[in-house]
Amino acid sequence: MARSTRGTDGERIEHLAEDAELALLLEVSGTPKPGNVDRERDYPDLRFEHFVAGAVRARPGLAALAVGGPLGEGFETAVAGMSRQSGGNTQFGALLALAPLVSAAAGDRLDPEGVRSVVAETTVDDAVAFYRAFDHVAVSVGEPPADVDAPDVRLGADAEPRLRERGLTLADVMAESAPVDGVAAEWAEGFPRTFAAAGSILEGSGPVADRAAAVYLDLLADRVDTFVASQHGPETARSVRDRAAAARDGEVDPTALAEEFVERGINPGTTADLTAAALFVALRRGLEV
Amino acid sequence: MARSTRGTDGERIEHLAEDAELALLLEVSGTPKPGNVDRERDYPDLRFEHFVAGAVRARPGLAALAVGGPLGEGFETAVAGMSRQSGGNTQFGALLALAPLVSAAAGDRLDPEGVRSVVAETTVDDAVAFYRAFDHVAVSVGEPPADVDAPDVRLGADAEPRLRERGLTLADVMAESAPVDGVAAEWAEGFPRTFAAAGSILEGSGPVADRAAAVYLDLLADRVDTFVASQHGPETARSVRDRAAAARDGEVDPTALAEEFVERGINPGTTADLTAAALFVALRRGLEV
Repeated sequence: MARSTRGTDGERIEHLAEDAELALLLEVSGTPKPGNVDRERDYPDLRFEHFVAGAVRARPGLAALAVGGPLGEGFETAVAGMSRQSGGNTQFGALLALAPLVSAAAGDRLDPEGVRSVVAETTVDDAVAFYRAFDHVAVSVGEPPADVDAPDVRLGADAEPRLRERGLTLADVMAESAPVDGVAAEWAEGFPRTFAAAGSILEGSGPVADRAAAVYLDLLADRVDTFVASQHGPETARSVRDRAAAARDGEVDPTALAEEFVERGINPGTTADLTAAALFVALRRGLEV
Repeated sequence: MARSTRGTDGERIEHLAEDAELALLLEVSGTPKPGNVDRERDYPDLRFEHFVAGAVRARPGLAALAVGGPLGEGFETAVAGMSRQSGGNTQFGALLALAPLVSAAAGDRLDPEGVRSVVAETTVDDAVAFYRAFDHVAVSVGEPPADVDAPDVRLGADAEPRLRERGLTLADVMAESAPVDGVAAEWAEGFPRTFAAAGSILEGSGPVADRAAAVYLDLLADRVDTFVASQHGPETARSVRDRAAAARDGEVDPTALAEEFVERGINPGTTADLTAAALFVALRRGLEV
């Protein structure tokens, strides 16, 4: 590498975008991850290869964040790239979790305090770009709560006038979603679950993909998955959490649980998103593949 | 994508590097690929995740080729990046097969004639960079034939004086290896097997990873794998070819063959390299994931 003509800054930035993409790929490589596509489990129309293409094509947006570009715009570019595959939405939530982490890393402040600052610094423009991102791909979302200021995300780019009128930043939008969305909750709280999970990955041993699967199960056992809750209701979400705890504790075979969740149409997508985010933090903190 | 601030050229270049990386990832995602790591088969110290990291980290070198940079330097940069994972050599041969194809695509001439031109235009500097690439990672190579001009690749950067003294271009070096190396043979002949395999992939249907596995088996059944020949001798290589033909023709279960090859230590790496190259050509010709 001594012969590289790239400066240290160039290499650092390149490695940042690489690590973000690699986190997405390692997440989907971990198996079994009950309820999600992984390297041994495809759905008929949503396959491992769609996640691979989504990660590869999200990279320009991740690179825009790695050079310190505006968060909302970088996120939107990443989503637009991710969408260039035929499986539909693969990593919208994971990119939303990664975006402030990559921005924080770009500013050499990848810790809870630093990410809190990145979130606090988001603007109305970031919120507008976030809404635009919904125009690139069909994202499954629940009905919005009645008592919030933020426009329905399904408006996409058309939400811009309302966002500007109300002066809503992306941090404001996320704070409103925090009670019903596990990724938004991380935004609002400084990514506590993400940083804790990154620590577990770093303390683990063995293949990284196996550690990713283990931390996914830990996260799923620890708290209800908000995506499952929005799709199937709180009772199902709690039962999924409890089944995951049983698998984590060795009372249920995780592979059998994976088959069970697929049959029941249970997809704990938010937990997979946080797993990707945790892998990114772990990679930045020295995790070796 | 209409909102992108990138020009058409920038996007085209980005998509080129993306497709090259994606080809590497789709190759290793195809299963079963008897004798090679795939998404369902790890070796103890060489795992799926090493190939994933190798592909992600090769991208800066692939991007250098995509902007029309010197072939040897782009290849060396890709190999240096690929080597930043703990599994050792994952994709040296695949990158060597991809390099002239990416360069040809950068010049809008990704066809046999165009690749022949790219090869013919290689310089002594390209050869020097190619030798330097061997310093980044331990590549398993056979003993060099006695009657060749090209220095032993194991010299790495130290080969430079001899290359310059003899005025050997990278095309010269590859031509000398063509009889014993399937990737070098493609270089020498305008990539006939690669383009034919790309056609098969495009004509196929169903998941891309399955098509990659099918074309791998076709290639392996069609001609002896030179990496197997260099490691185990020509007789074993012929028997591997014949076993692959039996699997292709439905007489042997490919998954059972995969187990058999792993047990026998048979690793048809060159055939996997050409599969990655064929995937790249297919992606450039409209293959959708």
